[in-house]
Order: sequence, then structure tokens, then C-alpha cells
Amino acid sequence: MITVAAERELRHAVAKWRGRGERIGFVPTMGALHAGHLSLVELARKHASRVVVSVFVNPTQFGPGEDFARYPRDLEGDSAKLAAAGCDLLFLPEADTIYPPGSTTRVRVEGPSRGFEGECRPGHFEGVATVVAALFGLVRPDVAVFGEKDAQQLALVRALVRDLHLAIEIVAGPIVREEDGLAMSSRNVYLGPQERRAATVLQRSLAAARAAIEAGERDPARLVDRLAAQIAAEPLAHLEYAAVVAADTFRPVERIAGEVVIPVAARFGSTRLLDNARLRVD
Amino acid sequence: MITVAAERELRHAVAKWRGRGERIGFVPTMGALHAGHLSLVELARKHASRVVVSVFVNPTQFGPGEDFARYPRDLEGDSAKLAAAGCDLLFLPEADTIYPPGSTTRVRVEGPSRGFEGECRPGHFEGVATVVAALFGLVRPDVAVFGEKDAQQLALVRALVRDLHLAIEIVAGPIVREEDGLAMSSRNVYLGPQERRAATVLQRSLAAARAAIEAGERDPARLVDRLAAQIAAEPLAHLEYAAVVAADTFRPVERIAGEVVIPVAARFGSTRLLDNARLRVD
Repeated sequence: MITVAAERELRHAVAKWRGRGERIGFVPTMGALHAGHLSLVELARKHASRVVVSVFVNPTQFGPGEDFARYPRDLEGDSAKLAAAGCDLLFLPEADTIYPPGSTTRVRVEGPSRGFEGECRPGHFEGVATVVAALFGLVRPDVAVFGEKDAQQLALVRALVRDLHLAIEIVAGPIVREEDGLAMSSRNVYLGPQERRAATVLQRSLAAARAAIEAGERDPARLVDRLAAQIAAEPLAHLEYAAVVAADTFRPVERIAGEVVIPVAARFGSTRLLDNARLRVD
Repeated sequence: MITVAAERELRHAVAKWRGRGERIGFVPTMGALHAGHLSLVELARKHASRVVVSVFVNPTQFGPGEDFARYPRDLEGDSAKLAAAGCDLLFLPEADTIYPPGSTTRVRVEGPSRGFEGECRPGHFEGVATVVAALFGLVRPDVAVFGEKDAQQLALVRALVRDLHLAIEIVAGPIVREEDGLAMSSRNVYLGPQERRAATVLQRSLAAARAAIEAGERDPARLVDRLAAQIAAEPLAHLEYAAVVAADTFRPVERIAGEVVIPVAARFGSTRLLDNARLRVD
């Protein structure tokens, strides 16, 4: 695995591979890598002969008062994990490589940015769309892998690629969970022991929702009411939202049908966690 | 010259050329082509072995009450001129090819969009940046040619390419003028005979400003005052703005130095015309 920080070295390595007819896979991350990230790297290896992983804690997707400064960073650990997972190139850009001096270009994907994370974290998705567009420009992958864990972000990236006609295949990797069902997240390290135990309510409530749909429930309001009640029964959980949305547009559905996502966000103490279930309902 | 409307056919033709190692040049236009556009096609031919020209009157860069509906269209004439000028592929997309159904992605380049056209035409530059990004995604040129006539747009496109790390060389083509000095523009057809004569004041005032700088003037305020007075002396001209700006950022300069642009905009009746002078001042 080679590690590069400069645009020029990145382009050189990627151009060399492409010149040999290789297919370039890309996994953008903010580091603090866990098994969820590594599963995306493995997935990229299945879709490409070379895998580029970026580690960049993107300041523009954090709001004022959010956890940008204390977001977990572990470059040495990340590098070892990526080398072991078969990453070919670790891209570690400085902020002014992503955002050149004088840079004022911003990308927004209005539709899938509406509501949910877009409402709870104003500006977040403009930061995400902008950094993803910049990284796509820098890396120029044939295929890029994103986690289903950040389901609204995934919908946004798919729309961005469609709308800007980028020749990049987007592959989604399923959520990877701890043994007790908690979705893996770099932010799980913020949780105290009691919060950590309480946080499993997200997965339990989503599993119940999935079972209800499989048993025939098609009314999103009734489903969300039950899901919210289950989360409310956990004293350490503070629900921010729960809904049933169409997977592609991330707009709430009136009846549960087609490919839907049930996104939930809740705070446990000062830690916000996301989880979701994804279902195809015929 | 081949003419295509569909994304698929466009990509197929460009991929075929690229597979042979050809370099792809691109000139985006809104049609109603005149000698100014054709000079950009010739310039593209010097920088590439294949030239793609798009004709698309982009609705998102027109404001309410602007001339989108009556913007001159002459597809037959355009097609004949492009074939004669050595265009290899004429791309004639429908709006839903550029903006796929459900498309909500918007690109803005804040810095160079501030002031001047960005102020006179709210939303204009977001429409320009978005359509240019979409066209770049569709065509994937190695080099794209833009006219210096739209100087602020040129600054925006250069910033867009830098900020999104697009591997596209931007080449600028000088303003092409009528015999009496009027800058060629598709909107010149709107001018009545008296307005048409009056409109030459733009070029005359810019020539005087250029001469003043060559004679040593370095104070932008004094230069702009004289330029504005000269335009005001023409009863049919209504000046919207005149300034001295840095060519790259399009921000007004405090002292005339480096590469500067003197943009002017004026109305003649209901027709808005742009012109500018570009100078390198040591």
C-alpha cells in the first residue's frame, strides 16, 4: 500500500493503473476505521482491481458546536488496517488539497438533503456533496463504495452522480453491527457503558419494524408510532426522528411499498447515533 | 459532423475517439452562432483532434422576466456553420438529458459569482455553473473553450474546474467584434438601428480606458469615472456597471496591476449588452 498526500502523486498513481486497463475503486472515509469501513474496502476489491481509500475529516460537513475537533483520529491504526484489508493507495489530503486556496465552489443536492440529517445538521449535506464531488474529481474512480449506514448520504451521492453525469458506479455496503446489534460507527467510542447498552434499542426497534412489515404492515404512521414508543421506553434514548422513506428520494412514503428505508436518529447523552433498516416491499 | 441528442450516443462517440488516443475539445454554446462562437471552435481545433459543440439554451441561467423564450434559435443555420467550421460532433440535448428527472443538484461558485452579472441577474451564475458541470460530465472533454466576452463566466468556469479538480484545460478565446467595434453577441439582433449605432460606445469607452492605462493610469476609480462619463454621453446607453477587477477572482482592484478585466454592462432599450477589456499591467 502506498500513502500519498499530494494531488499530483495521487493522479500519477491512478493514471499508471488506468493506463494498464485497471479498474479503480474508491472508498472515502473520515478515518477512525472499524469493521464497517473495512467491509467497504473488501466490497471495493470485488468491484475493482485497485482500491483507493481516502481519510479526510471534512470540516465543511460539521456544523458549529459539532464534534469536528474531537472526532476520533487514529492514523496509525487506520493505515495498518487498510494495508491488511488490501487497500492499494491511502490518500491523506490536507484541507487545502481538497479545497484549493480561493475555493468557493459548493455543491448541493437539494432533494435528498431535505429533512432528517439535513434538518438536524444544517449545512451538513452541502459539505458532504462538495467534498464527495472534489474527491471524485481528484481520484476519478470507476466505482465508489458507500455504506448503507448513512442512508440519506447514500441517496444524495447516487443523485449527485446521476445529476452531474459522473461515470462512477456507486456500490452500497450493508451495515456492519456489533455482536449485540449496535451499528458500527466511529462515534460509538463517545458512549458511556450505560449509553452503550441503551443504544441497542435502535437495532431492536428496527428489527421489530421489519418484522411488522413482513407480517403485512403497510401504514408508515402506525409503524413509526410503534417504533418511536419502543425507543421512548429506553430512558437513556432521545429520539430525533424516525420515518419510512423511499430509498432513492429519501421522501416519506404514504404507504410502505417499493424500496424503502426506515431511518432513525437518537441521542444517547451527547452522542447522536444513526441506524436504519432497508427493505424491498412488493 | 455527426449530430446527437442522447447521452448514450454522445458517450459512445467520445469513447471511440478517446480509445484511439484522440484529444477531445469542447465548446458549449446556446446557439444562434456568430463569428465569435466559430472562432472558439477554431481555437478548440488547435487544442484537440476532435471538437464537440453543444447547443443548449439553458433555462436555469435565465431569470424570471428574462429572454429565455425569445432567445434567438437557428438550429439549421448553426448546424451548417459548425460543419463548415470543422466541428466533429454537434450535441443537441433535450432539457431532461442535461437535467435528469428528479434532478436537484446545484453548483455555485460563490467568489466569482459575486457582483456584476451575479448581482444584476440573481441565480444566473448558479445556472451557468450547474449546466457547465453537467455538460463537462456528459462530454468529458480534455479541453474546453470559453469566450473572453463573458469574462465573469470565464472566471467562474476556471474556478469551478480548479475547485472540483476536473481534469479539463480551459482555453479562452478573445472577443470577436463587428467592423465598427461592437462585440459580437447573439443578443445584438434585438437592437434597433439607432441602438445598434449607440452600442459602439462600449468598445470606444473601453479603448479609451485601455489607452489611459497604457499612458500610466493606475487608479481604478478615476478610470471608471471617465469610462462611465463617456457612456453617459450616449443618450441611448444606460450603464449598469463598470469596474476594474482581477481577472481570476473578479473582485475590484484597489490599484490597476496584474491581469485585470474592465467589465461593462449597459442597456440599449430593452437589450442588455456586455463588453470588456483585458490587460496585463506590470
